[in-house]
Amino acid sequence: MADDPSRGLAARSRGLADVIAASTALSDIDGRAGLLFYRGYDINELAGNSNFEEIAFLLQRGSVPGRDQLDEYRAELAAGRQLGALAAADLPGIARHQRPMEALRSLVSLGSADDPDAQSNDPQANLGKAARLTAQQPVLIAAYHAARLGREVPQPDPGLGTAANFLLQLSGERPQPRAAEILDTCLVLHADHTMNASTFAARVCAATLADMHSAVVAALGTLSGPLHGGANEQVMRGLEAIRESGGDPLEAVSRQVSRRLAQGEKIMGFGHRVYKTEDPRAAHLRRMSAELATASGDDTYYRMSRRMEEVVFAEKGLYPNVDFFAATVYHYLGIPTDLFTPVFSASRMAGWTAHIIEQHADNRLIRPDSEYIGERGLHWVPFDAR
Amino acid sequence: MADDPSRGLAARSRGLADVIAASTALSDIDGRAGLLFYRGYDINELAGNSNFEEIAFLLQRGSVPGRDQLDEYRAELAAGRQLGALAAADLPGIARHQRPMEALRSLVSLGSADDPDAQSNDPQANLGKAARLTAQQPVLIAAYHAARLGREVPQPDPGLGTAANFLLQLSGERPQPRAAEILDTCLVLHADHTMNASTFAARVCAATLADMHSAVVAALGTLSGPLHGGANEQVMRGLEAIRESGGDPLEAVSRQVSRRLAQGEKIMGFGHRVYKTEDPRAAHLRRMSAELATASGDDTYYRMSRRMEEVVFAEKGLYPNVDFFAATVYHYLGIPTDLFTPVFSASRMAGWTAHIIEQHADNRLIRPDSEYIGERGLHWVPFDAR
Repeated sequence: MADDPSRGLAARSRGLADVIAASTALSDIDGRAGLLFYRGYDINELAGNSNFEEIAFLLQRGSVPGRDQLDEYRAELAAGRQLGALAAADLPGIARHQRPMEALRSLVSLGSADDPDAQSNDPQANLGKAARLTAQQPVLIAAYHAARLGREVPQPDPGLGTAANFLLQLSGERPQPRAAEILDTCLVLHADHTMNASTFAARVCAATLADMHSAVVAALGTLSGPLHGGANEQVMRGLEAIRESGGDPLEAVSRQVSRRLAQGEKIMGFGHRVYKTEDPRAAHLRRMSAELATASGDDTYYRMSRRMEEVVFAEKGLYPNVDFFAATVYHYLGIPTDLFTPVFSASRMAGWTAHIIEQHADNRLIRPDSEYIGERGLHWVPFDAR
Repeated sequence: MADDPSRGLAARSRGLADVIAASTALSDIDGRAGLLFYRGYDINELAGNSNFEEIAFLLQRGSVPGRDQLDEYRAELAAGRQLGALAAADLPGIARHQRPMEALRSLVSLGSADDPDAQSNDPQANLGKAARLTAQQPVLIAAYHAARLGREVPQPDPGLGTAANFLLQLSGERPQPRAAEILDTCLVLHADHTMNASTFAARVCAATLADMHSAVVAALGTLSGPLHGGANEQVMRGLEAIRESGGDPLEAVSRQVSRRLAQGEKIMGFGHRVYKTEDPRAAHLRRMSAELATASGDDTYYRMSRRMEEVVFAEKGLYPNVDFFAATVYHYLGIPTDLFTPVFSASRMAGWTAHIIEQHADNRLIRPDSEYIGERGLHWVPFDAR
């Protein structure tokens, strides 16, 4: 469009930073004050006071559930905690040959085969699919993990919520109530976050009136990138590598982080395009990491994280983001490191599906322009004359 | 971010119309003149003079291939014309239970398991994957079609190009040379088109440094939407429905289109956000549709299309877009209607993969803002007090 003088209103911003791509009633960020809201509720009021099922309902269905509504929604989720037949049939090969996020992308794509409303964008159909996809995601992760270990995945317990069921199905053991509570709070904290890249990808996809499964699969692929959901896993691998390098782990953190910052490298888990102060989710995750570290009897990773936070802030003025303390929380909860991003996806599924519902309800195709920066005016020479 | 006064540069546009989301050296549109360029070459020079392999090379590798380069690239494509083991193993169930675009989403997602470079965004790895994905896509479509009919998919012929091989593998018969030429020109015409929704989804995904398979899967899901790739199929179904309604088909077209326009309905295959005059691809497709119609001995659908075009232009001033005459071209080529969007994807794979290469080579996370339009200042009431 660079040649087109009719393009009078064009705006340009690399990475669409500060460009408003959509309206949403789902979440809001005050980046200067460090506040995050879900449908008008401050995340600081929700963390520890609400639970994931209430938040998924709030996001997908528009308001806080009453007692009967929540009971019905929980029953819907309990009924949805199973793999479709096609995904179940293909799971052994997928678990053998695909990494966790690849596997989830494949399993959710296959899952549309067993969803009766897969092709419908009708509001009622979308609500049902949103609940089923939210119920299935932690089951897919646990089933994948069991399959790669050659184990059967334990049956879910209809008396448990999403977080406790996930820990049960992942480990085969009924979780400690406090562990389930902490994971539940993580799921609340990660459920939505305005127009992050995976949510935006889901909305771009849904805006062609593609179905919810297609949009969620687009989101899963997008989340798998190391600049997005992949960051929590890299934080943990970084801590593990430093600890294994020997010597005093806190000194090793200081030395390595200072050296990497001096070389202009990025430290995963720090900084955010939107927050200019501390990410409010990080404060909750830091507290939970501290609690779990103490309870575990080995708080080394927590202390290393605190040191890293101090060094990065002193040298760069950057705050930890949501991925930083999520890494050690998941670690202390016994979640394998390569399942950190999948666990994030189990929470964000609530937000993705709510955004897809919102996009379908008031749709316009998302089709930006591009700026052409290549060659011009070339003429094609037929092959024989080249 | 609505509360954040620091957002001084914010731009806002529903659907990102007229917002520049990325720079690209791949394609350029002059919407007022009705011109489309691939890396500086006018599509009107390319259609009928170049072939799909040259164009895929041009887009993915940056310049027109010399003879040796093209021979090597063709050998790469020929070697890539096969399903991975995981996709092949799961194909029977997928063909039984998923529609074509769902199936392709699943098969490409599974395909990463058998790509040796699936996890690498290295430039050399990306070039190899781009060629393999481009080679595989038509094979996946033909294999899916064979599987749902309970047939074996014919082996590809290494002496044939992409278009001829596809027709061979789809029908089991060696195609007429002119049919293969026409399909080849369709593949040239559809290979890239700046920041269309599926390409944009691929770039949003790739910009998290997610891998090429994830980005292509996001694009496939996005293309499946009826406002994007799904339109060509709907054009054909519309023509079929009118013809089957009985009476003179041209009169039926005039009557139905006028009635639908009077009711404010959209007619699929007309209008485009970027072109203000005729889409240059439509002119080439119209000519090929006319040629195939005459050769087929039954030009009813072509004449119906022409009438539809006249009525829509007379009443709304809208031009046919790329989907409109592609529908009858594909129909006359014997392609099943529900495979029209998949065939489009086999061509656009060249452009998607080139955009992913370009995004990875000079990356910035694509993370826009959103405008919050929901409630504010709510306070959470614990469940027992509700």
